[in-house]
Amino acid sequence: MNGANNLTLHTDKYQINMMYAHWKNGTAEEGAVFEAFFRKLPFGNGYAVFAGLERIVEYIRHLSFGEEELAFLAKQEEDYDPAYLELLRQFRFKGTIYAVEEGSLVFPNEPIVRVEGTIFETQLVETALLNFMNYQTLIATKASRIKQVAAGDILLEFGTRRAQEADAAVWGARAAYLAGFHATSNMHAGMLFGIPTKGTHAHSWVQGHESEEEAFLAYAKALPDGVTLLVDTYDTLRSGVPNAIKTARYLESIGKRLGGIRLDSGDLAYLSKEARKLLDAAGLQDAKIVASNDLDETLIFNLKAQGAKIDTWGVGTQLITAADQPSLGGVYKLTARKCSGEYIPVIKISGNPEKVSAPGKKDVYRIMNKETGLAEADYMTLHEETDVQRGERIKLFDPVHPYIHRYIENYEAVPLLKPIVEQGEIVYKLPPLEQIRSFHEGQLRLFRPELLRKLNPDLYPVHLSEKAWQLKMDLIKAHQQ
Amino acid sequence: MNGANNLTLHTDKYQINMMYAHWKNGTAEEGAVFEAFFRKLPFGNGYAVFAGLERIVEYIRHLSFGEEELAFLAKQEEDYDPAYLELLRQFRFKGTIYAVEEGSLVFPNEPIVRVEGTIFETQLVETALLNFMNYQTLIATKASRIKQVAAGDILLEFGTRRAQEADAAVWGARAAYLAGFHATSNMHAGMLFGIPTKGTHAHSWVQGHESEEEAFLAYAKALPDGVTLLVDTYDTLRSGVPNAIKTARYLESIGKRLGGIRLDSGDLAYLSKEARKLLDAAGLQDAKIVASNDLDETLIFNLKAQGAKIDTWGVGTQLITAADQPSLGGVYKLTARKCSGEYIPVIKISGNPEKVSAPGKKDVYRIMNKETGLAEADYMTLHEETDVQRGERIKLFDPVHPYIHRYIENYEAVPLLKPIVEQGEIVYKLPPLEQIRSFHEGQLRLFRPELLRKLNPDLYPVHLSEKAWQLKMDLIKAHQQ
Repeated sequence: MNGANNLTLHTDKYQINMMYAHWKNGTAEEGAVFEAFFRKLPFGNGYAVFAGLERIVEYIRHLSFGEEELAFLAKQEEDYDPAYLELLRQFRFKGTIYAVEEGSLVFPNEPIVRVEGTIFETQLVETALLNFMNYQTLIATKASRIKQVAAGDILLEFGTRRAQEADAAVWGARAAYLAGFHATSNMHAGMLFGIPTKGTHAHSWVQGHESEEEAFLAYAKALPDGVTLLVDTYDTLRSGVPNAIKTARYLESIGKRLGGIRLDSGDLAYLSKEARKLLDAAGLQDAKIVASNDLDETLIFNLKAQGAKIDTWGVGTQLITAADQPSLGGVYKLTARKCSGEYIPVIKISGNPEKVSAPGKKDVYRIMNKETGLAEADYMTLHEETDVQRGERIKLFDPVHPYIHRYIENYEAVPLLKPIVEQGEIVYKLPPLEQIRSFHEGQLRLFRPELLRKLNPDLYPVHLSEKAWQLKMDLIKAHQQ
Repeated sequence: MNGANNLTLHTDKYQINMMYAHWKNGTAEEGAVFEAFFRKLPFGNGYAVFAGLERIVEYIRHLSFGEEELAFLAKQEEDYDPAYLELLRQFRFKGTIYAVEEGSLVFPNEPIVRVEGTIFETQLVETALLNFMNYQTLIATKASRIKQVAAGDILLEFGTRRAQEADAAVWGARAAYLAGFHATSNMHAGMLFGIPTKGTHAHSWVQGHESEEEAFLAYAKALPDGVTLLVDTYDTLRSGVPNAIKTARYLESIGKRLGGIRLDSGDLAYLSKEARKLLDAAGLQDAKIVASNDLDETLIFNLKAQGAKIDTWGVGTQLITAADQPSLGGVYKLTARKCSGEYIPVIKISGNPEKVSAPGKKDVYRIMNKETGLAEADYMTLHEETDVQRGERIKLFDPVHPYIHRYIENYEAVPLLKPIVEQGEIVYKLPPLEQIRSFHEGQLRLFRPELLRKLNPDLYPVHLSEKAWQLKMDLIKAHQQ
């Protein structure tokens, strides 16, 4: 693997410097537990959709400093000791990673990836892990919102030209597909992940012929049955749709049919309704209407509310960049150190109360109500707690307003963090993408619809166990003395 | 090059389908001229900074369908003719590309990349070219805005964990550096492009030690002279800064010094002023204050206006995602076809007047006023026009309000589009990044300061020659008959 593709230096300099300082001080082998989580849901949504695990696993699998990386490190102003560089040459990740499965619904302040190992190795992987998790989870969440409003319509991911560089295009297409999109225009994503690929034609196809009619005929003749024609190069209703209907007539004469038309400008509600009338009047009830042009969940919701006759939505810029909130803000915080086999919980204090971290190595369970079959809350415990695994009555209380509480006992506690890597060995079998997509679809049915609403959803509760909460209070107190 | 790294399928399906249809119809070898431009400046800025050319050149250099790509294409629902796939196997880009140089100031509606060749090859490259140009130009522009307000302060790019996947992190770091940033935290970008890399340490370093004081000492001992300490893990003014001062005392005792401190939360104006007082009172006037935490040009501008004592700004999320407008919206439009050696200009009409394209193969000149030495306007001509090259009097008029006009004669016309690729041969020598960075800095001095203002800048005029404007009017008229 050459330097451009080796992602081992896909990290911040301070990680390399902290690793160096630990090595110099003889603390590199000390144990550490880091937990990755986000503090705030994006887009005002009621949930996020976790994605990025496949990328993280492949990154861990190939993590290794090559000669180009080492030569680069040897030239830094820190003047690293050659013995340190030799240690990096031998480096392999031997830590343990637990993570939520891709396609799961996840919520603020709960660990979605937990990394345990030496402080040396757990520090190195922070940046890449957050980079992958933040972007892919963001796009899967945005796609899931769009899916919620598009109901049974077909959704195409069309964003590559506006994606933030090449990786975003393919991993964003994958995130969209796992959250319910049906296809992507990106051929590379199709090849890498087996996502169905779709496309129509560009304005340049029409401009490149003597007339729109000639252009449509030429395209329909060259491509297989069911072609979709872009009708807005000159004038949608006066030229584009009538020429598409002429093309349909020709196709009928040779035993083929018109798949549909695409609208890419103008008022999509008006144009789709008028185009539908023209197509129907021509007996083309089966021809589909595809729309594109800066669509997002809010615009699709409004167009549908106005009765737009659109069957298929091509969603580009707004999805692939998550335009209304282009970052998730996930963080990776040290929650415990391990000294002589003992975990020592640690905290980060902050002037902003929401930034005070929850100390201790933690597990997280989804509390499924056995009567309703629905998710009741997520419940974080210290790793050593076992009450919830035994199904004992637990107290659910608001960690910000702890006097608000209730007890629950008829539940099943589903552990969300699954073993992915155990002491450097990848123990998780990455599921096929189709399976992740079905899993996500199934997960949505486990939550009350009020939690899934696009605007001002009801908030799903995430609780800390009493022990985990008390530990946090104790550590805050200890640091304030 | 294996499938994950080969970017030949970093394209939309409709390109592959249009190429197929051209091939089937015998029109694949017809000539075409495409021009890439954007319609609207991002962030309300007065200019954009072009970036992405190095990436485009490398993409063109390696453009080739490998066996994995061909095997994937053979399985598509379009059931492409095997002879087409064989043609793709032989495919090399033989077209001609002219582009603006990286670091140039560019403006709406003027071609910044012009691609000429067969319709087959010019269509294939559209998606990747826009993807690279859109993102890198966006980030370079955002970075240039930040540079405008930061004046002589040091600017560090800290965004990797929030970047939209891995490519965005490295190409974004490069775009920031060419627009005036001083360093990046991203080690991969440092290695690939020779950008200086900088970093401090994380909260986890402090949490991972028995006390903050011990953590600071351990870090300062391990690293070379001039270390920067993160002071907000527990309490910035009561714990962090006093402990940093203690560390400075220790460093003095061994002949070293404290480089500075980093603030990463709380009110940065207040904390920096108070920290400055504490440092100065301890005789540490040379210790620098680094600040980070969701900074952008507006926040930096406001913090400086309030007298914040910050020497170095670590800018992350807001820059690397261009958070207030995460896409540029550049497009790639067919402006001419070539039949039997003759260029035939083409137009795209639209219900939205700003989306009607300017037909004809065009050149663009920067009109430099010989008296002031400043850029007066950009001037687009049809390729065959030569008046401007001979320095003849030209008419500058507003293409939207053509009755507003003036004449100019004492000018130098600098052609902005440079030959990059000629008939498949790369003829442009990519400049070193440092040279691009200096070039950009020099370019800024060629524009009136009113055009560079962050808020409501005066607008720099981009004109069409009379002939180019008349051609557009004629083609609109022809299509409306």
